[in-house]
Amino acid sequence: MSAIPRRTVWFEAGSVRILDQRQLPWKVEVVGLATVAEVAAAIRDMAVRGAGCIGATAGYGMVLAAREARDWAELEALAVVLKSTRPTAVNLAWAVDRQLVAIRAAGFGDRAEVAQATAEAIADEDVAACAAIGRHGLELLGALAARNPGRPLNLLTHCNAGWLAFVDIGSATAPIYAAHEAGLPVHVWVDETRPRNQGARLTAWELGARGVPHTVIADNTGGHLMQRGLVDLVITGADRVTRAGDVANKIGTYLKALAARDNGLPFYVALPSSTFDWSVEDGLAGIPIEERGPDELAWIEGLDEKGVSSRVRILPQTSGARNDAFDVTPARLVTGLICERGVCAADAAAIHALFPEKRLAAATD
Amino acid sequence: MSAIPRRTVWFEAGSVRILDQRQLPWKVEVVGLATVAEVAAAIRDMAVRGAGCIGATAGYGMVLAAREARDWAELEALAVVLKSTRPTAVNLAWAVDRQLVAIRAAGFGDRAEVAQATAEAIADEDVAACAAIGRHGLELLGALAARNPGRPLNLLTHCNAGWLAFVDIGSATAPIYAAHEAGLPVHVWVDETRPRNQGARLTAWELGARGVPHTVIADNTGGHLMQRGLVDLVITGADRVTRAGDVANKIGTYLKALAARDNGLPFYVALPSSTFDWSVEDGLAGIPIEERGPDELAWIEGLDEKGVSSRVRILPQTSGARNDAFDVTPARLVTGLICERGVCAADAAAIHALFPEKRLAAATD
Repeated sequence: MSAIPRRTVWFEAGSVRILDQRQLPWKVEVVGLATVAEVAAAIRDMAVRGAGCIGATAGYGMVLAAREARDWAELEALAVVLKSTRPTAVNLAWAVDRQLVAIRAAGFGDRAEVAQATAEAIADEDVAACAAIGRHGLELLGALAARNPGRPLNLLTHCNAGWLAFVDIGSATAPIYAAHEAGLPVHVWVDETRPRNQGARLTAWELGARGVPHTVIADNTGGHLMQRGLVDLVITGADRVTRAGDVANKIGTYLKALAARDNGLPFYVALPSSTFDWSVEDGLAGIPIEERGPDELAWIEGLDEKGVSSRVRILPQTSGARNDAFDVTPARLVTGLICERGVCAADAAAIHALFPEKRLAAATD
Repeated sequence: MSAIPRRTVWFEAGSVRILDQRQLPWKVEVVGLATVAEVAAAIRDMAVRGAGCIGATAGYGMVLAAREARDWAELEALAVVLKSTRPTAVNLAWAVDRQLVAIRAAGFGDRAEVAQATAEAIADEDVAACAAIGRHGLELLGALAARNPGRPLNLLTHCNAGWLAFVDIGSATAPIYAAHEAGLPVHVWVDETRPRNQGARLTAWELGARGVPHTVIADNTGGHLMQRGLVDLVITGADRVTRAGDVANKIGTYLKALAARDNGLPFYVALPSSTFDWSVEDGLAGIPIEERGPDELAWIEGLDEKGVSSRVRILPQTSGARNDAFDVTPARLVTGLICERGVCAADAAAIHALFPEKRLAAATD
């Protein structure tokens, strides 16, 4: 059992250090990855997961690649090894390509130093973006708390858009950690997030590790709590947000947005700007939804009565299952987007006002 | 392993026979209960559950009580034993009291025959009410299917308001079984129904046992399927319905009703009229919601890799949980109520038009 590190990934004494997320919440295990092959395996086997965390890990993987490669051909081959581990992860390819561009600009002889500096920059930029999201979100939470003095703010979140999905403090959790550190009393309702239980396994664990009061609930429960006045604000992360503000996020997010609307509660989405997909306007029509295997629903992993990690089948052998991984929350249900540049409404005009340089890209498709 | 019986409870060769629901879906086990003490234990330990099923089991339990009792005092003491097993189950006390009234009217000497006839009447009336719900619901489904020829009707249900909760065919499932038997092609999306998984364990199993096509989904998934045109109608049971049509049902029902409304889909609730609470108008204000222990969320039971029933803990040891068992779906979100007398809108006027004899009761509180 290791101490809980501050970052989810970093470089130390010649190897990439990661927190092995497959062992959470049962075991905190920091693993050292000494070769590109080991980094590739860690990404492929989901020892690290979450966009920001994968990108930073790949960035550090390229430090090892720069040390292992004896010529350009070997470096590029190692880059392909890293990029092919999870082909749909946008941040993975982006981080590896950024490294290749930086090393080419500096020259092969300086590859080790440049790769190291670039990897640190990628990680630090992720940390900075999440910190900025935390500052903007804290303003929102502070204003809300001022209207409800004398009691903790009750926030509800779905899935894990936390520290573990990034390098530090996360996106949806950034305002929560910022509020907690600023002494603003907060309590978080953590959706279990079936079928992979990222809320119960990861978000609950990381909030607990940082001392943030929280309670796990079944995904069915949020609407009821809102009806009873036990939720002040809903905040989630996003997997992809269109230029018009439609939000693709973990399956079930849409149901919480509907309940927030029905109860007159704010529903915010926190995201670094890299999560925008400027090429898509209508999320329901334009974002493909990944359908994963039924075993994620049929089997569930936990600790058995003896404390040993074990899995059990919870569906009848005669029943099939369908496992859509994400849904799309229409922009009309989203109160606002919390980005590193600030908070904006979830509509095309407000988003483009915050990111004016993206207008051209949006206009060309 | 027993053959699958038609009814969930019946009387045969001197004992009450039940399907032991604790063993489902892993094992079909018909158990014989030869004494009042055994019947009481079966109800208390939830070998039988569900309003209709508990009521019928208690009715048959009174047949054994009539045989065991040597005088009125003993009979009444055995009635108390049965009634005290699950004090909040309305049908339980109702069935036992109905037996006492019938036996008193007939005289102690005829107790065995009268108790037997009354028990069969209680069970048969449950079957008849569900059958009538099935006929009324089938009309609805037939009309819907006629508007969508050439493809199966996709229905979504939450929790178990099925055969296993009654004596036969259930409430929410009655129209589904009726449609299936009438040759109307139906497919059912079965909400897993966390935290007790009644959908995955019971509804999926009983639909499979009767050959009804179905697919289990995480509770998070229904809204997404509705957005994609993959749901035609939502149908659930109810634990309590107010005289104005507010519906208390398994936690998470409200979220599905919101999604149905957002997607312009019909949301129906099926119930025998014994489920109405004529004393309450506003469900949010007037129906207390049971909060159960956190262990139902923290631990989950299933079959391990060796096929042995086993449970695993799925929450970090450092995280608490909250476990509200029911929520209230406001009448404004309910398209209609399917009762044994027919289908009506979920509003006070329509409900009272269908049950005019209840006007006085409603007016007196």
